[in-house]
Formats: sequence, C-alpha cells, structure tokens
Amino acid sequence: MLGKLFRVSLFGESHGRYVGVLIEGVPPGIPLTEQDIARELARRKPGTQYTSPRREEDIPEILSGVHRGYTTGAPLVVVVKNKDVDSSWYEEVVRYKPRPGHADLTEKLRSIGFRDYRGGGYHSGRITVGIVVAGAVAKNILEKYNVEVFSYLRYLGEIECRIETTETKEAIIRQKYTEIPCPNEASRKEMEKLLRELIRVGDSIGGVVETWIYNLPPGLGEPHHDSLDGDIAKAIFMIPGVRGIEFGSGFKLARMRGSEASDSISISEEGDIIIKPGYSGGILGGISTGSPINFRVAIKPTSTIRLPQKTIDWRTLKESEIIGKGKHDPSIAIRAVPVVEAATSIVLVDHLMRYFSWRLEQYYRLETS
Amino acid sequence: MLGKLFRVSLFGESHGRYVGVLIEGVPPGIPLTEQDIARELARRKPGTQYTSPRREEDIPEILSGVHRGYTTGAPLVVVVKNKDVDSSWYEEVVRYKPRPGHADLTEKLRSIGFRDYRGGGYHSGRITVGIVVAGAVAKNILEKYNVEVFSYLRYLGEIECRIETTETKEAIIRQKYTEIPCPNEASRKEMEKLLRELIRVGDSIGGVVETWIYNLPPGLGEPHHDSLDGDIAKAIFMIPGVRGIEFGSGFKLARMRGSEASDSISISEEGDIIIKPGYSGGILGGISTGSPINFRVAIKPTSTIRLPQKTIDWRTLKESEIIGKGKHDPSIAIRAVPVVEAATSIVLVDHLMRYFSWRLEQYYRLETS
Amino acid sequence: MLGKLFRVSLFGESHGRYVGVLIEGVPPGIPLTEQDIARELARRKPGTQYTSPRREEDIPEILSGVHRGYTTGAPLVVVVKNKDVDSSWYEEVVRYKPRPGHADLTEKLRSIGFRDYRGGGYHSGRITVGIVVAGAVAKNILEKYNVEVFSYLRYLGEIECRIETTETKEAIIRQKYTEIPCPNEASRKEMEKLLRELIRVGDSIGGVVETWIYNLPPGLGEPHHDSLDGDIAKAIFMIPGVRGIEFGSGFKLARMRGSEASDSISISEEGDIIIKPGYSGGILGGISTGSPINFRVAIKPTSTIRLPQKTIDWRTLKESEIIGKGKHDPSIAIRAVPVVEAATSIVLVDHLMRYFSWRLEQYYRLETS
Amino acid sequence: MLGKLFRVSLFGESHGRYVGVLIEGVPPGIPLTEQDIARELARRKPGTQYTSPRREEDIPEILSGVHRGYTTGAPLVVVVKNKDVDSSWYEEVVRYKPRPGHADLTEKLRSIGFRDYRGGGYHSGRITVGIVVAGAVAKNILEKYNVEVFSYLRYLGEIECRIETTETKEAIIRQKYTEIPCPNEASRKEMEKLLRELIRVGDSIGGVVETWIYNLPPGLGEPHHDSLDGDIAKAIFMIPGVRGIEFGSGFKLARMRGSEASDSISISEEGDIIIKPGYSGGILGGISTGSPINFRVAIKPTSTIRLPQKTIDWRTLKESEIIGKGKHDPSIAIRAVPVVEAATSIVLVDHLMRYFSWRLEQYYRLETS
Repeated sequence: MLGKLFRVSLFGESHGRYVGVLIEGVPPGIPLTEQDIARELARRKPGTQYTSPRREEDIPEILSGVHRGYTTGAPLVVVVKNKDVDSSWYEEVVRYKPRPGHADLTEKLRSIGFRDYRGGGYHSGRITVGIVVAGAVAKNILEKYNVEVFSYLRYLGEIECRIETTETKEAIIRQKYTEIPCPNEASRKEMEKLLRELIRVGDSIGGVVETWIYNLPPGLGEPHHDSLDGDIAKAIFMIPGVRGIEFGSGFKLARMRGSEASDSISISEEGDIIIKPGYSGGILGGISTGSPINFRVAIKPTSTIRLPQKTIDWRTLKESEIIGKGKHDPSIAIRAVPVVEAATSIVLVDHLMRYFSWRLEQYYRLETS
Repeated sequence: MLGKLFRVSLFGESHGRYVGVLIEGVPPGIPLTEQDIARELARRKPGTQYTSPRREEDIPEILSGVHRGYTTGAPLVVVVKNKDVDSSWYEEVVRYKPRPGHADLTEKLRSIGFRDYRGGGYHSGRITVGIVVAGAVAKNILEKYNVEVFSYLRYLGEIECRIETTETKEAIIRQKYTEIPCPNEASRKEMEKLLRELIRVGDSIGGVVETWIYNLPPGLGEPHHDSLDGDIAKAIFMIPGVRGIEFGSGFKLARMRGSEASDSISISEEGDIIIKPGYSGGILGGISTGSPINFRVAIKPTSTIRLPQKTIDWRTLKESEIIGKGKHDPSIAIRAVPVVEAATSIVLVDHLMRYFSWRLEQYYRLETS
Repeated sequence: MLGKLFRVSLFGESHGRYVGVLIEGVPPGIPLTEQDIARELARRKPGTQYTSPRREEDIPEILSGVHRGYTTGAPLVVVVKNKDVDSSWYEEVVRYKPRPGHADLTEKLRSIGFRDYRGGGYHSGRITVGIVVAGAVAKNILEKYNVEVFSYLRYLGEIECRIETTETKEAIIRQKYTEIPCPNEASRKEMEKLLRELIRVGDSIGGVVETWIYNLPPGLGEPHHDSLDGDIAKAIFMIPGVRGIEFGSGFKLARMRGSEASDSISISEEGDIIIKPGYSGGILGGISTGSPINFRVAIKPTSTIRLPQKTIDWRTLKESEIIGKGKHDPSIAIRAVPVVEAATSIVLVDHLMRYFSWRLEQYYRLETS
Repeated sequence: MLGKLFRVSLFGESHGRYVGVLIEGVPPGIPLTEQDIARELARRKPGTQYTSPRREEDIPEILSGVHRGYTTGAPLVVVVKNKDVDSSWYEEVVRYKPRPGHADLTEKLRSIGFRDYRGGGYHSGRITVGIVVAGAVAKNILEKYNVEVFSYLRYLGEIECRIETTETKEAIIRQKYTEIPCPNEASRKEMEKLLRELIRVGDSIGGVVETWIYNLPPGLGEPHHDSLDGDIAKAIFMIPGVRGIEFGSGFKLARMRGSEASDSISISEEGDIIIKPGYSGGILGGISTGSPINFRVAIKPTSTIRLPQKTIDWRTLKESEIIGKGKHDPSIAIRAVPVVEAATSIVLVDHLMRYFSWRLEQYYRLETS
C-alpha cells in the first residue's frame, strides 16, 4: 500500500488472470467511468510499432467503489484481464535461468522459491497498469484544483527531446497521445530511427523521463518523515527500471556554488510569490513552493535483449547463458512516461488531502443531496 | 515517523531546548550506551575548521528504552541539548525575509504563519542529530549480521575523491573520522583549498555523497510498495539539501544500451551467487541481490551565503534583499556524509526485521535468562 | 487496510459485482487453494434454515498471489461474485428512508450523498466474506504453529449455550459446521425454537459470540500502541452489529476485588508456566501469556425487522415509517461466529509475524529449492 | 504510534528519568501552554487521599513543536520528570517474582529478559501521563468545534454513581476536578467508605468508566478498517487494567429483540436529525451519527494487593508467593477516568482531521499573516 490517505495497492501478475489496483480513501463524489481509465491506459498500451508486440486490449472493469458514475468513498477496485499470454519460454528457460537485470534472481530468494516466474510474475512491467488506473482517478481529483502533471521523454539514449522553455507546457500537452512521448518532431524522428535499429539488432536503450507539475498550491508535504520530494521518489521507484531521480538541477547542483544556484524569491505581476529560476525544482524543505515542480527520472535499458547474457542455472548451480525471448520493448522509457505521470498524480492527491486535513475546515452541516 | 517496524520520529528545532529522536520497535537486547551514540554524533559535529562555527558539545541523553546497557524493546528516546544559540538575526531579519533556497517561505505557508523561524526551526540541519542517533542504534543491530554501511564524499564541487576500487572499503573505513570524509589524501588537500577559498569569499559549494553497503543478505525489500531502493530514497530526502539519488550507474544508464549495461550472474570461488559489475547497484526489482549496494546522493550548495540574494519582505510584500549571517557550512555535503550513512542504516534495519517476520521462524520456547 | 505486516483490505458492495479482499504481506510458501477458502465460506453462507434466504454459492476466485497451490508473497486477491441480488426495495424505499440501526443515515452523511444504498452498500454483512477469506489464509499459517482459534455462540438472547469447561475445545470443534454454532444440543434446540418464532413474528434477537485461542506463544502484542487485545478489539469492530467486547471476566471484573480476581502463576506438570484461572483472559499488559485467550463479543439484534420503525424521508425531511423487507437473518450473531473467528486469526498472524521480526533470526543462506 | 493523522507515541518508564509523549501531525496555530497540560495532569495526579501515595508534581515541559504559545505543526514533545522513585522492592522481589495480573511475566518473555522491571517499566500506569498530555492538546482542538468529551466513574465495584439523565452533562462538568470523579454526592460518600476499607485491608476493587461525547459532527469514522468505535476501542486498550468496552446498550443488546432495541430517526425542534434513545451508542456502521456517543469501559481491580498471591520464582523456576508493596491505588478505575477521556479525545481529533481531508476544501490562497 502506497500513501497515507489516498492509499494505493497494486496486485496481479504478468501471466495471472488479472492485474489491478485497490484504492482506499478515495473521496466520494469524484466522477469516474471506465472510459476515463481506458483513456489513460491507452497511453501505456503495448502493441504499437516501437513497443512490445504483446497485444492487450486493456479494458478496465470497476469492481467496487463507484455508483452511478461517481466514487462513493468505499474501497475502489479496478481490474484488467491478461489475455495475450504465452508462458512456454518462462516455464522452460526462465524458471531455471534468472535473466540478468531482472528480479528473477532476487524474487526467487525473497520468496524462498515460491515465486511465479512466468513473465516476471508481479515484477512485470504489466503491473504498472494499476499505477495508471490509480493515476486516472487521481487526475480526476487534481482537475478540480487545476493541478496539471505532465511527463515526457526528455532523453532516449543520447537523443534529447529539445523543447523551448516558453512552449514546454503546450508542447507536452499536444504530444500526450503520440506513440513516442516527445513533443519535438525532429527529435522524435531520430528516436524512431534509433528504435528501429535496436529492434533489428535485438538490443535496447535507456532514457530519461522529465515531469512538470503546474498550479500545485504551496504548503504541500509533511517533513520530516513524509516530504513531498521523498514521497514522489518512493512512488517513482515502484516503476520497473528506475535507477535515479533528481529534482530541479539535481546532480548538477553538486558542482555549483551557492551564488550560482540561488533561486530568487520575487513577486509576479499578478501579485503571486514566485521562485526563479528553479534550481531546487519547486520544492523547498520537502514542501511545495507554489512554483512549477520539475524532476527527472533515469530509466535503465530494457534488460531482456536478443543477445546472449551470462547467468546461472538453478538445476546445476553452474554458470550458463541466456538469450532473450518473449515480448519486450526496445526501451521501457517510452512506456514509463504515462506511468511516471500517474505515480506523481497519486502522491499529489495524497498530500493534497493531508493538506486539507490540517486546515480543519468548518465541517459541513447536514446535506440532503 | 519513518519505517514500518523500526520506526523513527525526529523532533526538535534549531533554537529550541532540544533536538532528539524517538524510536519504536527497537528489538530488545541490543547493547547501547550514550558513548555509542556520542561517537557517531562526533562525526557530524559542527565547530571544526571547515564546517559551521556553531559550537555544540552534542552530549546525548537516553530518556527511555534502555536498561542496564541494553535496549528493552520499549520506545527509545534520546535527546541532545541545544546550547550555542543566538536568535537575533532570525528575529530581526529572517522572520520577515525568507532566505532563498531555505524552507523559510514554504514553512510559513504550510504553518499558516505559526512556524518557529529561528535557525530554520525544525528544518535546520541540526535536526539530523536525530538521524545520526537512530543510525547509531541501527548500526549496533547491523553489526550482529556483519552488514556494513560506508558513505564518503565522492565529489566536492568538481573535485572527485578518487579511490581505487580494490581498496575502496578499507580506504573508507580508515577515513571515517577525519574532518573531510574523503579517503584520498590528494583529493582532500584540494577540497581543503577550495573550502578555505569559499569561506574567504562567503560562497558555498555542492557535493555528491556515495554509499556502499556490504554483506546485506539477498531478499530484502517489499515491492511493490516498499521497495528497498524506494525506501532508501525516501529516507535520504529527509536530509536537508538533497536534490537527487541514483543507484549503480544511475543517470548514466539512461544513455547505455542493454548489451553494455548487462550485469552478469555468476558463481564466486566461495560458491556464492554474485552479480557483476553492478550497473544496477545491487538492487533488482526493489530487492537486495546479496552483492554490494551502491548509490550516490546529490547535495546542493549551502543556500545561505555571505553574498546578497533577492527575496521579499513579508511586511511590505515587496521585493528586497538578504545577506547571509548566522552559522553556516561552506558545504553541507561534508556533514551530510554521516547522516546519509545513518539514514541508510535505519532503512536496512527496518527491512531486515521485515525479512525475519516473513521467515516465520519457530518461536522461542520460554526463556529464563 | 487492517494490520501492519499481514495487511487486509476488504472491498465490494452488497449489490455490486463482487465482494473480496486484498492481502499484502502474506508469507510465501503457504499452501492455499480455492477449496480451503470455500470450506470456510461455507460456514457463513446464507441460505440455510435460520439465516437470510439470500442464495449465494460463494465460490471464491483467487486473482493473484498464488502459484501452483502456494502463496508467493505477492499481493493476494480473492473475489466472490454477487448473484442473488434484487435492488428494487432499496431503490424505491431505502434510498429515501434510512433504516434505523443501519448505516444508511451515517453513510449518506459521510459520503455527501454519493453512497451505494443498495443492500447497505459496503456496510452490508456480505462484506464479511472478505474477512472469512483472509481468515482462511491466516488459519493455514496458524496451523503451522499449532495455534487454534475457536468461536461459538455463547448466547442467543437469554439462551446460553452451556458447555462443560473440560470438554470445551472438543465440543467446539465438533460443532464447527453445524447450522447453529453451539456445541450443546439441548441449547441448540431451544435456540432453533426461538429462531422459528422470530421468523414467524418478523422480529430479531442479539447474541454473544465467545472465542478461545489455544497454543498461542507468550510474548505476542506490541504495547503501548498495538496491544494484542486492542488490535483484536479493533478488528472485531469491523463486523457489523458488534457493540462490545470483553476479555476474560470482562465487565464482571469491575465488581470484583483484587483478592478474588487474582490469576495465579504456577508451573504445570509439563513444566510450562501457566496462569489460572484466567480472569484476565490470557492477555496481560497487552501481551499474550501463553495460556488460553478468551473473549466475548456482544452482537446486537438484526436491525431490519418486519415490524414498523420510525425514520425520516429525505425527500420531505419529515418523519416517516419503514417496514423491513429484503433478505435478513433473525439473528446476525449466528453468522457472526465464523467471522469473529476469522478476524481473530488475521490479527494473530499479524502479531506472530511481528514477533518473528523482533527475534532477528539468523537469515537463511541462499536456498535453491 | 497511535492514529493516522494526529499521531501519538508514548514513551518512558515508571522509574526512568522521564515519561512523555511525542505527537506528529498537530495542526499549526493551536494555542498550547504548559499550564493547559498541567491542568489536565492534575486530574490523574497520584498522591491524593484515595490513590497511590506516590508523590509526583507532574510539571510538564514542552521540548518542541510550540512557538510563542501556539503549535507550529512540527513534532510536539512533552516530558514529565519522575521524582518519587524507590526501586528497592522491584530490584529485590519483582525482578524474580512476576506479580500476578501484571505484565511482569509477559514482558519478560516478550523482551527476552531485557525488560526494565522497576515499577512495571513501560507498563506502569505512570505511562498514562503521556495519554493525558496528548489529550490536553486534542481538547484544545476539539474546543474549536465545540466537541465535548466527558468521562466519569459509573461504577466502583457494586456502587453505582447514579445521575439523572437530564442533568448528566452538567453534573459531569461540575465534578471534573473532584477527587472521586462521580457527580452524585451520595454515591461518592459510599465510594469513599469502600476505598477506606480497601486501604485498611490491603485489597482493591474494579470499576466502570462511562464516557459521553457531545456535538461531534455526523460522518466521522473510516469503515471498514478504521471505524470510529474500533479506533476508540483500540485506544482505550492502551490503558492498563482495561478488560472490556461496550457502546450504547452494549452487552445488554445481546439479550434484546430488534423491536425493543430500535433507535428511531426523527427531526428535532431545531430541525436536526436525531437518533433516539441511543441503544447503539451514537455510532452506526462505524460512523458518528451526530447524536451523543456513549460507551463504558471495564477496569479490573488493581492487581497489586497487600495480600499473598501465588507466583513463581525465576531463579528456581518453582512456585512461590508474593505480597504487594510499593505505591498502589485501591482502585485504578478512579485515575483511569481522565485517561479514558484523554484517549477518546485523541481518537476524535484524528478522525476529525481525516474528515476534513476528505472534504477537499478549496485550498487557502497565500496567506501573509
């Protein structure tokens, strides 16, 4: 379970009956349809040209927590059926030979041997379906407060998706449902070329997902123990393949002087307090500043490749080799984009609710709606 | 409160009576003295040549949870008195002018104006005393299992603390209690030179803290929601000034191909399963592999400098300027080193306990000790 | 979510598609089949002579967390379809007229009007299906440690189910799957007579469920904040209709002197420390003693009766009247018996796991099973 | 740690340096002085005629979380020094002979022998100081919402403190600071007589504490897993000596028919929805109804008496005997009254905050106070 008030529990395995999510603490009265969820799921759906060939329709079914199109406040459960599943390679090979870079080895040790090894079991990227579903619910809440979360593919390997700062937000919005989530067309063409080459040679590539959060009120975050950046970081590490996160100028700050890296506090023309230029990434002391929040996530290259890798064989406990098979993306960074956006939205709603709890509003009197 | 079984709650303010920590869930029978704690506190103590001139003796007092030199399993509370405190600059200036890069602004908004602005209140670096205290307790537990955690200053600005891979561990151990936590003497000399210059001009610098964990058993971590890397990341973000974290090759992985970044699984001469060379940093699928764990933390330059920075004045709501005063380190990265080590140790103990809970050992029969 | 390590989340509504449960933290390697679960569900199944005429087959479907007949440690989800549903009375009457004694009124206020009013929504007794499912999993774990949990109907109204102390355990075991969970045949006949009369006149009756726990190791419980009795109490209050709980001699202790209510500590013939006669109910200071644990739960009479009750009408905000319809038990205490047993088992497993976490056992070395 | 948003952690031991409490999540801007806390502490203070002769001044010291008389939102820590301590009996006798009815036995087993046996260690009634302190903070919050919590001694042994229903609230208010917390003078005289006799013969007596909550808004409680009654029950079981809790008519409901135990829903003259007469105790489906909440708590007789009790000796593992010494109350029920009131207040604030979190109020715009 992730979160304190808006609490998300993922479940399901790659080759099991279903993947899904249970959410506790959803406020009542949030409009929610299976279509809202399906729209977000479409963004991470496999089966497009540059992603895994696994074909999944990903039709969400709401099992509980919604009545007549609105959330009721009761636990909300959504499931998505697994359909296009072939476990033969896993039964014959992966069961005995842990794939380098995957959780096959660690999960076997953790589960004392009782794991579901088919398709990576509950470590599969497929489990991110649940994150995207919970993100869809979270976004319907954030929308009420005009909070916007946008992620895009900042880097695919060495290729940067350059966007002019002034048009960032618009550019990102426009690209949301394209196959490669980079709003710069020239960069996208380069990325497509790289992906085609990788598919041809059977290799993979890493990437960086960048996220911007706009219009979040100042004051969110509960330091010390539940800082906003700490909670975002923790949620992001749920996503398979993430190996790093940095806010604002991140690791570059380590090389800067205080005089260079200073974010001025000033008053905008509208009279709002603003922080510029944003080296710290919109969070200070674990609390949102009210200025845009910005962070980047490092995604490693897909570990499964169609080239030989060294591993061991559990049957002999001797060294061996494995060559990737099954359904895989040349870069998991592409499909990580909507998942990062969803995970971020989940954390924001959780902290928004804590924020209200602290304001101790005059409670509503009896309502008769 | 941080953690699920080994649960840590920091408290105290920079200019309040005490800083301290409460720990719930400490297993009984762990040897613990005020000297154990004092020894760790000495490593983050201010008042040395290259750190803040604030003079604090930092003598820990155990208020509860220890009897005759051993933990009892009852909540453990340790406090450290604040002594060298001068609040005048904060009362006269910081109260009205939020310092750029600090939590002054965000905390005022979060607390609806009821914050303690003296010395940064509970956002002060001084609160890390509690992390180091809890880390001292955690280390006494890890020692039982031969788990070792070592942090050092990998970068101060552009200066790298180079250490030969083969001698890393020894080198780090040897340097543990030197003033600048870098085991390479030549690098340390360079760093000292840089720090003297920064003190002279009133500026500051960022840095990178690197951590290695040795001998951690495989199988620790509770994905999806409490992955080992996610929980380490969350704990690290409690530390003031942290803007990023990366495991293994981290952000470099984003530029690598799967064929380059492959960690082989093989059998060591002793018959252990090992993972080399360690691009993923010793954690796969959120679970420890049994191989060394490695991560780096980006620390921003100290925000308070003796140079003018732009801010606002709450009294006029107009733009204004502020020049740093008070007690500050030229680089908070130096003193962050033992704090990162402590925060990491806390998370490891929490996950070690979860690991045992899952093994469902045959319970002990009545013991009469 | 209930529990800290063995974490249970109920979901579903009376007239929704499914009711079910998600369990996080299930240790791997626990044998579990849909038959194990079905067997426990059979004990709370409606549709027998003295319970609600609602006909439900209650066939459990394991959606995740089990592989080849054993738990994997991944989140475990089980659902049961709702079949025999007729919402007409709820749509026409209950939607507007809150039923006295039910959650209709409070849920409407809590959900700001967005509740699912059909069959009581997520407040329905049907939700206890999830408790029984989680209890079935818990029992498969407790069995490994020889811990036994037995509940029976101590009182139905004024009728006591008398059992000789010496034969208690055996008697309870024998009666486990009878329609009225009282092991004394004479008492059971009386109860049946009362139930038939209640069904005839359209009234209902309360009851007391008594529970015994045998073979629980001493030392379980985490006071102050998670005492074993406190956690049992909290879990029991999840069950609809519960209005009280008492351990050992409970409310009778309030009238006793210390000299009368003294539990001696002595050594049994087998050399075990035992506590007799058990006024405190086997828990001291929130921690299990190793002697049998005993508590009683007060269940109120079914609130829905076929007799007129005073209520209001939301449409007019005027006072009105309602007469019960739909499917109801003459006494919910009967079907509460297996639910109390299940809820207790859940709490015991959670505390058993905490107990092991605290022992910090030597971790297992690499296992190759 | 108890609670989800208003989170309370007790600490300290009977014969340690301090007892105290840490509270996380206290909203900022709540007025709080050491006097507010001292006033509540005075109600549970030992050293009066009918309680333990232990003399404690109980002067609270706020260590953190308050600035200029208001809470800041930072973790709040309050400690009270232990002064009148004599450990000799515990060192010489209790260390080896567990006192029947106390946690001496269970704590030894739980702590694998590393417990602090002096004065009961952290199981001492003295730990309730922390509950009362947290209750004082909670009451300052409840006051803002006009919520009132009143506890009194309903029974001391067989003696009932009779109060006319119509004057309950006033009567309770008036008696708040008398030595025996029963508002009926005749009953009080009888109780005093009984207490004097018990002191003379060295025996003790149990009691029942009754609590009323007025003006709580409807809609508080988070079923299934955090029902309002379940959370109150769990908090109450933190208090030493509690063996039962019942809401409304409680165990009496088990003997009633649905037609007798029906709570009508009607409209008051002021137009409020009210529930009468209150068999269910003001909570339905785990959610507050808006009508007064009422529950009773069974407290066992003080376990330590000046009469011989059977126990064992750890040194010989043979049966032995013990006669009570040290400082003890003839009835812990008397001093439990303010503690029950405090524990209840803590839970109410936690749920009030959750309630607001769910309303998702329009967030405050930048405030410049």
